[in-house]
Amino acid sequence: MVAPLPISDRYKIETTQLDLPPRVLLGPGPANVHPRVLSALSIPPVGHLDPTFLALMDEVRDLLRYAWQTDNELTIAVSGTGSAAMEATLANVVEPEDIVLVGVKGYFGHRLVEMASRYGADVRKITKPWGEVFSLEEIKTALETHRPKVLAIVHAETSTGACQPLEGLGELCRQYDCLLLVDTVTSLGGVPLYIDEWGIDLAYSCSQKGLGCPPGASPFTMSPRAIDKLKNRAKPPANWYLDMSLLTKYWGEERVYHHTAPINMNYGIREALRLVAEEGLAQRWQRHRTNAELLWAGLAELKLTCHVDKNYRLPTLTTVRIPDGVDGKAVSRQLLNEYNIEIAGGLGELGGKVWRIGLMGYNSRRENVILLLSALEKVLNS
Amino acid sequence: MVAPLPISDRYKIETTQLDLPPRVLLGPGPANVHPRVLSALSIPPVGHLDPTFLALMDEVRDLLRYAWQTDNELTIAVSGTGSAAMEATLANVVEPEDIVLVGVKGYFGHRLVEMASRYGADVRKITKPWGEVFSLEEIKTALETHRPKVLAIVHAETSTGACQPLEGLGELCRQYDCLLLVDTVTSLGGVPLYIDEWGIDLAYSCSQKGLGCPPGASPFTMSPRAIDKLKNRAKPPANWYLDMSLLTKYWGEERVYHHTAPINMNYGIREALRLVAEEGLAQRWQRHRTNAELLWAGLAELKLTCHVDKNYRLPTLTTVRIPDGVDGKAVSRQLLNEYNIEIAGGLGELGGKVWRIGLMGYNSRRENVILLLSALEKVLNS
Repeated sequence: MVAPLPISDRYKIETTQLDLPPRVLLGPGPANVHPRVLSALSIPPVGHLDPTFLALMDEVRDLLRYAWQTDNELTIAVSGTGSAAMEATLANVVEPEDIVLVGVKGYFGHRLVEMASRYGADVRKITKPWGEVFSLEEIKTALETHRPKVLAIVHAETSTGACQPLEGLGELCRQYDCLLLVDTVTSLGGVPLYIDEWGIDLAYSCSQKGLGCPPGASPFTMSPRAIDKLKNRAKPPANWYLDMSLLTKYWGEERVYHHTAPINMNYGIREALRLVAEEGLAQRWQRHRTNAELLWAGLAELKLTCHVDKNYRLPTLTTVRIPDGVDGKAVSRQLLNEYNIEIAGGLGELGGKVWRIGLMGYNSRRENVILLLSALEKVLNS
Repeated sequence: MVAPLPISDRYKIETTQLDLPPRVLLGPGPANVHPRVLSALSIPPVGHLDPTFLALMDEVRDLLRYAWQTDNELTIAVSGTGSAAMEATLANVVEPEDIVLVGVKGYFGHRLVEMASRYGADVRKITKPWGEVFSLEEIKTALETHRPKVLAIVHAETSTGACQPLEGLGELCRQYDCLLLVDTVTSLGGVPLYIDEWGIDLAYSCSQKGLGCPPGASPFTMSPRAIDKLKNRAKPPANWYLDMSLLTKYWGEERVYHHTAPINMNYGIREALRLVAEEGLAQRWQRHRTNAELLWAGLAELKLTCHVDKNYRLPTLTTVRIPDGVDGKAVSRQLLNEYNIEIAGGLGELGGKVWRIGLMGYNSRRENVILLLSALEKVLNS
């Protein structure tokens, strides 16, 4: 016997084979996943430095470049969830005392403020009520006032369902010599997005929304302008795991060991990105738009009001106002318990005021729209 | 058409269905995975706040406590690979100017130095040649000299194959009022390890070695003493993603949203931990020991020398000296290309000097030992 001490069985709990309910995930993500992606996840792992895995990493990079419409050399899947990729953008380019201007119009804008502060930034904020977006003029005025090193803004606010127009921001940021950092968590793979054409210098996303893969490997991209700022840092970032000057040597030609990549999650995101390429971005964006329109029309028939002006409404995530006198949480619970449908409530300012309904990636399908509308009607009238 | 600009197909590459070679992973990890774990990975995801997922998280916590032999409330799977869990230990307890004493006797000791430095620690080092371990007396002298806030040491050095005895360190660290931080990446699930009995305050591991799950969800545990240090910080850690004061609210009773957990990776680690509990720790540790002894005997028959003294040799990872005149890399390459067997070369000081052979988790099996010995014999004599 090799055990030098007695072994405690206190936490040796009895468990059964995993048997989870067949949820239809129509909240803010994760969304359901194409069967091909699930199959890819269960392929036996190879090593993280195996030539076949290195080739797969290159495919993931190329397919991500397609999905994001960028030539950026530094385009990778971060080994964590979307929040890790978010932190990677700030951790790499923010140096102590740098002025970072954040456009706050929802929960994830606040999180950008929090993260940038932790890396020592002098954070300045412009704000909008949750559900609205900034005009180009408002952003220009703020750039003129604050002269930031980085402008950070959320493209698709998962907490509000509003889509921030990005056209023209890249030119402004060049004019004011600042980097443009964009949260594309709820837009990549579902909403028109052009990293290079729009002059975006840093972007992050997740795998579990528009791309239709489980969470755990997260898109990250960085322009040559942003890399210059990283290269000229006085000190390396506090964050080692997300340090792009190290990660780029593993994902790049040198193949220097940094950490062990999440092999099977990379199998999954590769398959999800293949599905994006097979469908084609134009068709995919159109599908998201068409199904969202169908949802919005159906909600109107149920006399429910969307929180966001139609001009800025996201096709991937819709916020619906909870009618007076209706217990929003009870409705969500009933949808989950009686119909296996997940939708979510509001966050922060919109807590208790809206439901959040996602139609993302594989889940943006006509049958999901009519299923949800039908179930919602039954629950609201029960 | 919703696309406002032309779409570039430059990176819309042609790819085929994933078809990877059937590797036998006998390097330092990832190791092969039990079919039950692979099946669990491909179960359709539920939401990260679904009641069924919250219950699953509780099971993961309990089963991790069993594997680590700890009652620590704060025992979770970090949403990243082992390097993220490693960083989580330091990021949470190190404050700028804190003295951190690191025992360096291999690659991962150096990484602890690097990470602690990035979080502003005043790092002191004691060193040993790669492949050796520290005596209790040497550590006591260093604690007396440096009076650190944290002593960080690697239990099972993946770069050298040496196992650092930990008995008595906990008492010493209490005597000198410092926290004991231990890397258990290559020991958890394969080598005797008692977090509470040995007075370990902070530990991290990975999923892809002794636990036999693909990489991507990583064990982390923190004692009440370590939590006290976190609670008394002047400022929150720079690292938001790994901030345990936030993570504990998601994994704990409050269930406050922090980030979207990697759902399917948690399915996988749950199944891997169930397999640990079904086998039982004593039997599992014995299995690793028995198969390692078989390997060592076979290597001796091939006139190959283990780099580490048998008293400190890890059963999970064996370093074998490359004989004079043999091209180590060519041998590894031939094993991979002709027999689909992965072993690894040395890192750092041991680069070019040793091979690293892992027998971990599901892969610690008699048939793998004889397969490797047979293939190695053929390659060395070819």
